[in-house]
Amino acid sequence: MTQAIHKLVLLGTGLIAGSFSLALKRARLVNKVVGVGRNAANLARAIELRVIDVASHDAAQAVEGADLVFLGTPVGQMGALMAQIAPHLPVHCIVTDGGSTKQDVCELYRQYLPNQLASCVPGHPIAGSDLSGASAATYGLYEGRRVVLTPLPETSDQALETVQALWQACGAIVYEMDAKTHDGVFAAVSHIPHLVSFAYMNAVLAKDNAEQCLDFAGTGFRDFTRIAGSHPEMWRDITLANRDAILSDLRANAAQLQTLIALIESGEADALTEYINQASQARSAWGKKRSNK
Amino acid sequence: MTQAIHKLVLLGTGLIAGSFSLALKRARLVNKVVGVGRNAANLARAIELRVIDVASHDAAQAVEGADLVFLGTPVGQMGALMAQIAPHLPVHCIVTDGGSTKQDVCELYRQYLPNQLASCVPGHPIAGSDLSGASAATYGLYEGRRVVLTPLPETSDQALETVQALWQACGAIVYEMDAKTHDGVFAAVSHIPHLVSFAYMNAVLAKDNAEQCLDFAGTGFRDFTRIAGSHPEMWRDITLANRDAILSDLRANAAQLQTLIALIESGEADALTEYINQASQARSAWGKKRSNK
Repeated sequence: MTQAIHKLVLLGTGLIAGSFSLALKRARLVNKVVGVGRNAANLARAIELRVIDVASHDAAQAVEGADLVFLGTPVGQMGALMAQIAPHLPVHCIVTDGGSTKQDVCELYRQYLPNQLASCVPGHPIAGSDLSGASAATYGLYEGRRVVLTPLPETSDQALETVQALWQACGAIVYEMDAKTHDGVFAAVSHIPHLVSFAYMNAVLAKDNAEQCLDFAGTGFRDFTRIAGSHPEMWRDITLANRDAILSDLRANAAQLQTLIALIESGEADALTEYINQASQARSAWGKKRSNK
Repeated sequence: MTQAIHKLVLLGTGLIAGSFSLALKRARLVNKVVGVGRNAANLARAIELRVIDVASHDAAQAVEGADLVFLGTPVGQMGALMAQIAPHLPVHCIVTDGGSTKQDVCELYRQYLPNQLASCVPGHPIAGSDLSGASAATYGLYEGRRVVLTPLPETSDQALETVQALWQACGAIVYEMDAKTHDGVFAAVSHIPHLVSFAYMNAVLAKDNAEQCLDFAGTGFRDFTRIAGSHPEMWRDITLANRDAILSDLRANAAQLQTLIALIESGEADALTEYINQASQARSAWGKKRSNK
């Protein structure tokens, strides 16, 4: 059983941080939650929904006396926040985050909190949703979901175990891997689908009869492009943050398209069937394993 | 109001043909439905579900006295069936189909039914489903769905209007375009998403840590790859049948990936945002228009 957190500070009070707070409150593992944000309406809503107990605009002041700081903002804002809190962070206060890329966030910890690395536990809860803001936060968001922790070499066992136990108390399944492996895995199964979907949409839009084409798009198109509707700035940041893994996988996808083009050009029906079959079998097996199609 | 069809023959009694039959029966626009198929169990089930009234293994015999023949098999089987029925087809019997590519099917009509082209009405009901077989047939499948008819220059107004009216009686919205335009549109919004999704799956499978990657795939991956689980032989046939339009669009997609790779390599954040934004705006606008996200 984990020891309760006396004071939790959320830097950013959106879906990810808010749901973390709600789950810990329900598990009676946190006494007081301070939320820091720039959007007054969102902070007010967070208090109203009891996602946080106290709102603040001042990260430096907020972290005084904190046991745990959770960085729940987009990765692009984390460096500035770490710089603000660094001089005010209590010695044993644990710092963790919900950023969806990890090599760059690890770099930020090193740059801005070099003397507190033992207490830093980079993390990535896998709980994407189209929704955002405190009002989207729910008690059960992490129930059965995966959380990946990518500890630094300096991260202490105690800090790691504490964050692990808190996520488990939220109902999450916790995995540990190094930041580079994390970024490679999520480039492959999250970032690339988004980018390929953007590229596909732009290919359709470049057609002379784009509008006519979109008029006849059906359910296959709908599902395939759902993620193409994602937030541009967020995906620009993720893309640039995870540049190397993404470039490598994008090149692999371009090469696969060339393979496929060559198969169709040559009209090799059996090889084409085999190409499709390999993809189809693997996708069906994945769907069965997850029993979510 | 359309005149009722005395005898409708379904060549192939799966989801597409079966649902056509059920909708026409409900509209009281057909008196007798004969189903022709190779799978005895599926035929028996079709009778049991009243999708058809009579089952047959002999297409030639079945079409005698028919007013309307619907080809509901995969496109790859249509030529052989047309050859079988050609000598037995009543003079004014209308022939239509549900094939998802149209230039190749038009070619088959020309090759196998050259003397009956006035009565031939190539068509494509847009009602994809993961399900197949007579037991998947439903009365309402075509309610509000689109059906594209691609008449031949020889197709008579009367035959076209009859088929149009029957589909409208099924609740469908009927469009007319030439076969080449049809194939271009469906390459863009149906065939290419499938092929890009197959290529993406194969790129993941080629990775050293493919299994680890798939373990962390979430809802974005799930939707993006849903169509990668499609039927390999069916998609091989569609791909080869619509070769030219598909090759052109696949090359455009490969070029888009190169554009994206160049943007990421150069680190041009604003241009990257604009690239993503264009795709995201278009996808969101499409979703709103369809109000199906």
